[in-house]
Amino acid sequence: MKALVVVGHPAVASFNHSIAETIRDAWRAAGCDVSYHDLAGEGFHPLLTAAEARGEPSTDPLVQAHIAQLRESDLLAVIHPNCWGAPPAIVKGWIDRVFAPNAAYTFAKGDDQGDEPIGLLKAKVALVINTGNTPAHRETAVFGDPLERIWRDCILRYCGVQHVVRALFGVVATSSMDERRRWLAESDLLARQAIETAMEVGH
Amino acid sequence: MKALVVVGHPAVASFNHSIAETIRDAWRAAGCDVSYHDLAGEGFHPLLTAAEARGEPSTDPLVQAHIAQLRESDLLAVIHPNCWGAPPAIVKGWIDRVFAPNAAYTFAKGDDQGDEPIGLLKAKVALVINTGNTPAHRETAVFGDPLERIWRDCILRYCGVQHVVRALFGVVATSSMDERRRWLAESDLLARQAIETAMEVGH
Repeated sequence: MKALVVVGHPAVASFNHSIAETIRDAWRAAGCDVSYHDLAGEGFHPLLTAAEARGEPSTDPLVQAHIAQLRESDLLAVIHPNCWGAPPAIVKGWIDRVFAPNAAYTFAKGDDQGDEPIGLLKAKVALVINTGNTPAHRETAVFGDPLERIWRDCILRYCGVQHVVRALFGVVATSSMDERRRWLAESDLLARQAIETAMEVGH
Repeated sequence: MKALVVVGHPAVASFNHSIAETIRDAWRAAGCDVSYHDLAGEGFHPLLTAAEARGEPSTDPLVQAHIAQLRESDLLAVIHPNCWGAPPAIVKGWIDRVFAPNAAYTFAKGDDQGDEPIGLLKAKVALVINTGNTPAHRETAVFGDPLERIWRDCILRYCGVQHVVRALFGVVATSSMDERRRWLAESDLLARQAIETAMEVGH
């Protein structure tokens, strides 16, 4: 199976990177062909060009490569911190540019007239792992955890990915080494379960 | 009253700009001192530096200017398209960098340990206007309109802005000139009402 793992965090080494490497390694150990991208590390440019915003295909070679990998992935993992209930700008820019019209989704009429889209992604399972500094009960009660709906309903199901598994780890700022080890073990488990789910869905 | 109007859209001239100019003009006509920013037009750099991500103050003069204006605003307006249930990257980067710790919010303990924040903004009313291509019933039923909670609960109330007025205009892609004129008239009305509300709250 082909897999794409994307991590977005401003630092070059973060706990988000450890999670992403855990998933990458679990999928590689299982024989998957994994493309791994650290968006900040590779200098991904996050702003849509005016042409891209009009729906024209990107001419940026890095964006084109990401689109190709996204389209052929059976497994997808995205890892980023929860920043204000949304992805940080580096990840938001990756979404804006890579989940492009006629690449990740399209419309029966050819362009977006407010109709239901046709998803073009073939990924069988997507894994979204976020880190945060809000206790779980406060995230749900006060903030409503908007990332859950953004990833599951607004992005992935829109593009045809039905099976979305999400985890939100926190409070990271005050976490112990033991807690972090447990979160990495959980990430490894979720990655291995994703392969099983993808194989069941594929048959 | 001091006011800050921010528009984020990849194009140099868009319907989002028309909405933003309408609000700016309504506030200027009422005698407000309005700072107006077209983020893409002024080349706002959307990525947190590693130091900013660690909570250190920005050394970017444009970010510093935005922070100063945000902190002294009595009225705030943000206008952007709904992109995947979240702001586009240019606006998300503005949030990530300008709603900075010890500028827009702080903590009793000095840093973020998952506790409730102390809002530092003094804006009495914030106006958030979004455009989209999803019919209103579908936005609510299928996608859950995450922008509502992102702006109201995750960002503005977190930073101490209690009075948030939001409008979502759509479907823009198929809208007639008459509809657009109506949305601009509504933006003008919301801007003028915001002044009244701010004056009531201020007394």
